[in-house]
Amino acid sequence: MNNANLQLTDEGKLKHFLSIEGLNHAILTDILDTAESFTSVTDRSIKKVPILRGKTVANLFFEASTRTRSTFELAAQRLSADILNLNINTSATVKGESLLDTLHNLEAMQIDMFVIRHQDSGSAHFFAQHVHPGVSVLNAGDGQHAHPTQAMLDMFTIRRYKQQFENLSVAIVGDIKHSRVARSQIHALNILNTGEVRIVAPPTLLPKQADTLGVQVFHDMNQGLRDVDVIIMLRLQKERMTGALLPSEKEYFRQFGLSSERLQFAKHDAIVMHPGPANRGIEIESSVMDGNQSVILQQVTFGIAVRMAVMSMIVSSGKENP
Amino acid sequence: MNNANLQLTDEGKLKHFLSIEGLNHAILTDILDTAESFTSVTDRSIKKVPILRGKTVANLFFEASTRTRSTFELAAQRLSADILNLNINTSATVKGESLLDTLHNLEAMQIDMFVIRHQDSGSAHFFAQHVHPGVSVLNAGDGQHAHPTQAMLDMFTIRRYKQQFENLSVAIVGDIKHSRVARSQIHALNILNTGEVRIVAPPTLLPKQADTLGVQVFHDMNQGLRDVDVIIMLRLQKERMTGALLPSEKEYFRQFGLSSERLQFAKHDAIVMHPGPANRGIEIESSVMDGNQSVILQQVTFGIAVRMAVMSMIVSSGKENP
Amino acid sequence: MNNANLQLTDEGKLKHFLSIEGLNHAILTDILDTAESFTSVTDRSIKKVPILRGKTVANLFFEASTRTRSTFELAAQRLSADILNLNINTSATVKGESLLDTLHNLEAMQIDMFVIRHQDSGSAHFFAQHVHPGVSVLNAGDGQHAHPTQAMLDMFTIRRYKQQFENLSVAIVGDIKHSRVARSQIHALNILNTGEVRIVAPPTLLPKQADTLGVQVFHDMNQGLRDVDVIIMLRLQKERMTGALLPSEKEYFRQFGLSSERLQFAKHDAIVMHPGPANRGIEIESSVMDGNQSVILQQVTFGIAVRMAVMSMIVSSGKENP
Repeated sequence: MNNANLQLTDEGKLKHFLSIEGLNHAILTDILDTAESFTSVTDRSIKKVPILRGKTVANLFFEASTRTRSTFELAAQRLSADILNLNINTSATVKGESLLDTLHNLEAMQIDMFVIRHQDSGSAHFFAQHVHPGVSVLNAGDGQHAHPTQAMLDMFTIRRYKQQFENLSVAIVGDIKHSRVARSQIHALNILNTGEVRIVAPPTLLPKQADTLGVQVFHDMNQGLRDVDVIIMLRLQKERMTGALLPSEKEYFRQFGLSSERLQFAKHDAIVMHPGPANRGIEIESSVMDGNQSVILQQVTFGIAVRMAVMSMIVSSGKENP
Repeated sequence: MNNANLQLTDEGKLKHFLSIEGLNHAILTDILDTAESFTSVTDRSIKKVPILRGKTVANLFFEASTRTRSTFELAAQRLSADILNLNINTSATVKGESLLDTLHNLEAMQIDMFVIRHQDSGSAHFFAQHVHPGVSVLNAGDGQHAHPTQAMLDMFTIRRYKQQFENLSVAIVGDIKHSRVARSQIHALNILNTGEVRIVAPPTLLPKQADTLGVQVFHDMNQGLRDVDVIIMLRLQKERMTGALLPSEKEYFRQFGLSSERLQFAKHDAIVMHPGPANRGIEIESSVMDGNQSVILQQVTFGIAVRMAVMSMIVSSGKENP
Repeated sequence: MNNANLQLTDEGKLKHFLSIEGLNHAILTDILDTAESFTSVTDRSIKKVPILRGKTVANLFFEASTRTRSTFELAAQRLSADILNLNINTSATVKGESLLDTLHNLEAMQIDMFVIRHQDSGSAHFFAQHVHPGVSVLNAGDGQHAHPTQAMLDMFTIRRYKQQFENLSVAIVGDIKHSRVARSQIHALNILNTGEVRIVAPPTLLPKQADTLGVQVFHDMNQGLRDVDVIIMLRLQKERMTGALLPSEKEYFRQFGLSSERLQFAKHDAIVMHPGPANRGIEIESSVMDGNQSVILQQVTFGIAVRMAVMSMIVSSGKENP
């Protein structure tokens, strides 16, 4: 997949948003700065700007989601877009139409932007390769590949609380192997020149060739958390339990759960993040999740501003290249 | 549950709308008067006012509903709100997230108002206790506890047709025991100083301590309807049949169904109400439901104006107490 | 069903849109001309006009649909209507309410326009017979009876590519018997004075009294396609296979599938249409569907303009007859 070409216009502006790979420091910073300006929109009493007025955003969710779908929908509403929500289970795909035919039919409805979540890695790229010029695709999570808006809202949260990335040590903890969130976060942290990126996981939950990702690998959580500025906990998919990759929930918590005792290993002002939905008592203790170092709910709030930023940058890149 | 404190601002204005209990005559009258002004909005050709422009209303329905969900959605649209509909079955709760975590996540999306229907009594209060200042909760039905907007649209209907409450005799007929609608109606009628409130039901469908509710209890329907001005029929939940609380549908209709013969016992200008959906031939005869004393469809229409009124009062109370 | 009276105001303007039967050449041409003006709206950057501002359109889909439901929703959005989507499976009908009660309750919510798809032939007429003056019904497909907006978008497509109808030969191919689309197309083509209308199908998939429809019947596809200007392929409902009406998918394709070889029998500039969703390799070869004579995706695009046209004509007829 040639991400760089696919995601950017000839002038280097954002055309699709498919993965963090292929984007550079300047674009990621531009997204963060633009999102910063939108936080003031969502804070004020009338939370609307007319940037996407008369544009249509289609939400294509092939996997269930509350948080991501809702924040994309709210972002589009607050930019004044028209929104088409498509429940794919009840759609024409049940009549045997192929995914590509479904896409082309929706495109024929003059949709301006597709927000797509799909269980297959590469699906968002596939869509982007096949849409007409002027139509954009935003990846809301594709298989185990990428979840780039989640990664950018995480970067936004880190920058809000820590101001910069260069002197930070960030630990990502949990099921790295199956996590599109982790994959996108690692790329973003590295592009933003984060001082040190650590991944903390049992060997069975590490991706192959973890050593090529530009991260430090830890199998011991206490060591992995030592003196970090940011802890990002990942959701443990309970179905991994049955696959014999993990001993038990209790044992997992003992080894890789974030308890308040274990949080002491990190810097005293470390922040705790989680993409949600969290399993309390499995990967994170309730007292930590609700504690004053947790910024988990702020991540959700920032997610709307970040998605508004990406959508508005894509629309403005289209204006300059009609 | 300390309803009074929870529902009102320090200045005594409406902050949440959870139950009729805890509200006083002045506030209920204010709702009715405000709704009166909105009936003209919904009658006119362009049915929109900008009162909730830039605000987000989330519809959280844990129980299926057409009438109540649709009228809340239309009320919010006609006030120009942005609306987020959440199908809770496909939401993150399927991933094991707790209700409170779901609420906090939604709240982090800067929702201004939650409309909640939930099968557990007390759920709306629970939500209201946990939301941030500035966020409001509207109860669209919680278990067997309360359905306050339904009660207020019923009060609106009565006032429209009968002008006042003081000299009226009102009979509520049917399964009082399991009805959140009846519970809220009884409170509202008493607060509004209704002349006489009667409940008509078999002993098995009466709530415990019915005598403490400020009502007259009748087990004979002919006596219960005698000379009343208003008849409110309740929906008979068919699942009560299996619980041995009732003999049979036919026998129920014979004893407590509203036939045109039985309607003669009421005043000649009595109005017939029903919260819907009605079981024709079980609790109410078709000819009565479609007859000229029935105001059942008017109730639905007034429901939009009443919900607009409650939403607009809540928004304006927030403005004065930011 | 007295369509003429039901669909038109006393002045002969469009009040409901239920079936092509009962409409005349002038009205169909008016729809096509009005749709022409809306194609420029949907082509421009801000795809919105305020024609339905403050009006409420309810989408009542009792059958699953992506294409039709989405294009109706987009048409209503682009006319600035408020939209209420009703998932009928989760609605009050599950509580045992009759269809007519559901309709009357929705009507009491001051819905201005109902878009209805229902599995029963005649359901849209039934609704139109029972709504109040001022409320309109648009048929989005009723059983095997009619799908008039589909037929009009097909007429629009033909006129766009062929400028007129009088000198054209049009072949409709496939399961005519069970197709509400074919039925509406045949009526529209005849009202618009199409030179020749052919239907091409095996005897088991012909309607009774096909000879009374004003069409030429062909059982041999090569003969049926000879020198036609327009080919309309119909979707083959796979469930017909099991009913012994058809030998096999392979045999069906051999006899009635549109291959590139067979396309040679038509005029060299013939256009290929399909209402979608298409079964590639069953009724139409992929190379034809994606070939340069195919206008299948253009049909989808034109469908929005045609639906905007019908909605706007209905609203303006209401204004003149309040």
